Amino acid sequence: MKKENQQIGWPKGFRSSGISAGIKVDGSLDMALIYSDVLATAAGVFTTNQVCAAPVKLCRAHLKEPHARAIVVNSGVANACTGKAGMESAALMASQTADELACLPEEVLVCSTGKIGPQLPMEKIGSGLVALADSVAIDQIDVTAQAIMTTDTRSKQVVRDIELGGLAVRLTGLAKGAGMIEPNMATMLAFITTDASVEPGVLQQVLSSAVDQSFNRITVDGDQSTNDTVLILANGTSGAVVESMDPTGYGAFVTALNEICFDLAMMIVRDGEGADRFVTVVVDGAQSIDEADLAARAVANSLLNKTAWAGTYPDWGRIMDAIGYAAAQVDEERVNIFYGTTQAVEGGIQAAISMEEMVKAVSEVELLIRIELGLGTGSATVYTCNCTEAYVQINV
Amino acid sequence: MKKENQQIGWPKGFRSSGISAGIKVDGSLDMALIYSDVLATAAGVFTTNQVCAAPVKLCRAHLKEPHARAIVVNSGVANACTGKAGMESAALMASQTADELACLPEEVLVCSTGKIGPQLPMEKIGSGLVALADSVAIDQIDVTAQAIMTTDTRSKQVVRDIELGGLAVRLTGLAKGAGMIEPNMATMLAFITTDASVEPGVLQQVLSSAVDQSFNRITVDGDQSTNDTVLILANGTSGAVVESMDPTGYGAFVTALNEICFDLAMMIVRDGEGADRFVTVVVDGAQSIDEADLAARAVANSLLNKTAWAGTYPDWGRIMDAIGYAAAQVDEERVNIFYGTTQAVEGGIQAAISMEEMVKAVSEVELLIRIELGLGTGSATVYTCNCTEAYVQINV
Repeated sequence: MKKENQQIGWPKGFRSSGISAGIKVDGSLDMALIYSDVLATAAGVFTTNQVCAAPVKLCRAHLKEPHARAIVVNSGVANACTGKAGMESAALMASQTADELACLPEEVLVCSTGKIGPQLPMEKIGSGLVALADSVAIDQIDVTAQAIMTTDTRSKQVVRDIELGGLAVRLTGLAKGAGMIEPNMATMLAFITTDASVEPGVLQQVLSSAVDQSFNRITVDGDQSTNDTVLILANGTSGAVVESMDPTGYGAFVTALNEICFDLAMMIVRDGEGADRFVTVVVDGAQSIDEADLAARAVANSLLNKTAWAGTYPDWGRIMDAIGYAAAQVDEERVNIFYGTTQAVEGGIQAAISMEEMVKAVSEVELLIRIELGLGTGSATVYTCNCTEAYVQINV
Repeated sequence: MKKENQQIGWPKGFRSSGISAGIKVDGSLDMALIYSDVLATAAGVFTTNQVCAAPVKLCRAHLKEPHARAIVVNSGVANACTGKAGMESAALMASQTADELACLPEEVLVCSTGKIGPQLPMEKIGSGLVALADSVAIDQIDVTAQAIMTTDTRSKQVVRDIELGGLAVRLTGLAKGAGMIEPNMATMLAFITTDASVEPGVLQQVLSSAVDQSFNRITVDGDQSTNDTVLILANGTSGAVVESMDPTGYGAFVTALNEICFDLAMMIVRDGEGADRFVTVVVDGAQSIDEADLAARAVANSLLNKTAWAGTYPDWGRIMDAIGYAAAQVDEERVNIFYGTTQAVEGGIQAAISMEEMVKAVSEVELLIRIELGLGTGSATVYTCNCTEAYVQINV
């Protein structure tokens, strides 16, 4: 159950820290550590980009044995496109962290985010790891969340408390990401911890499913990143066990995890680089779910639509255009388009509605665009934001 | 043979006009007519968008009989997503033009470009058609080219003179387009005329091939339009005949047509909305031509790359990222990337080169980016431009 205005804290048996190691030139926080007092079950979902960062490769290798004690993160440098030296740096980051925490290197998961290309400054990272281990505590979640940020304007934290078999269970998630955000993962990192006990196979399955419905449904600029990573650690400290044989408990846990991932994903879109509007694109009535998804993504990723949403002119023609070139069956004459509850297009042409009503409908900061294709039962939703001049300024 | 500083004129037997019919609110030129004194062979290539404008549907129908006397164009309103009323307007535009020119409606090809959604103002169009017919002349090519513009900052005209069997033959082309430009056609119109005689089947074939190598290789913003149209009229007035049985003459004609289309396409990219840099993306060494094409388009359409090219920072990591998510096989460790002749990436990591050299290489207004995948012999080139804050301003 979600509690409003709840203070964010870790589940039992987790601690963390966030420090400045001098990787970012402005001296802001740039290294984070999330630590479990006991060995936790671990699972991960990673970028599908063929060009992926050294820490992603390392995490995949470490998760072949699905247990971990710690997640260590640096921001500022992505350690992507860094070749053999980059792989050595990622491995060193794991082994140095393991030394500090008295665990095995394979029990450390490593993440990096930031500039692609440069090598990690391993001297700074080394000193940073010592400082991280020294300052690890139960109440450092704010600085931990801040230390993983890059172009984010605010940190992203979510918590859910549930009851499993009479035992209190918590799930806490952190995320970062604001640009290079595209379905199938993005320049985003998300770390979820829980004090429930979950079997590795089940943990991987519920995480993958939650990611599909959340992080894989958002897009800021259509660029898939080299470093996207979602990790979950379940340390069992609460004593509660999530089992698929217990449908009620399993359902409660899955729901909470889905909500955590969804909320974090929405926070990322809302913090989209330079964006000031949150846009939900729903496609209904496609011939299949896949086609609904393709049509929704075409609209959400269309630069002409994203720039239109920076204004208040109801440019529904650009939506028609985008679904027309999507790899989904479209019959122009059957298309209806709604801004919120206001119908802008009926049967492929402008609905009988005044320009004033349409401008009002399209001026909502939280814009819901619903497209009915009228061809079948396939439905899909994608969450995105507008593209403003500020996006260009940030990315020049 | 291309002649420099040559004055642009129509081939023999063509005339044209351009007027203001009051469709555009600022009173600028918004209707154009291209007219052949005799019935010409005609061919066309159109948008692949499933949502296509009424005039596109009408042109396709009229070209079932591949002959035409005239092309009539309006700018300001696209007559797209206008349903049955829009089809009637397009047909009326053809029949009214035919009345003025004393030809059959089926011999008139109609094009519209501009805003999607509104109906054509048929009263203004009707008066405009009379004015167009009244002012048609051999020396009105400048106003004709201007009258088809929308967000273009300059008109686009190209001419080639060749000799076929001792006879002088001319090809003259006009185009418009600056935004919504994406391979597989864009919000662009192009009209090519020639006084050679070419059989319908041959004309369609050489036009389709020329379009594939030119208009289908450019991208401004990745948005395919509802109205894209390339038309060619060959009226035979020169007396010269293009025949595939005459390889020399056929080759000269095809070369000239390819050059016309390529030059017009490059003019469109160079006039990309808000753009101030011209970027050529070459992918070599892909497993196939199709994969090279997909990788080149991923880079050219990546918003992060397009915004990077608005600055002078050598952000080659964004190129690596884009090829990594392209639907083309990429082996990170084999990738080389060059800015002009300067190698930025060698084997997937930064080449041994100073930042100064790299900044210098990436600061060229005409930027050539060459990507070697090292996997095969597939090669492809895409022409694009950068994305600046001005693009957002234009499209809000």
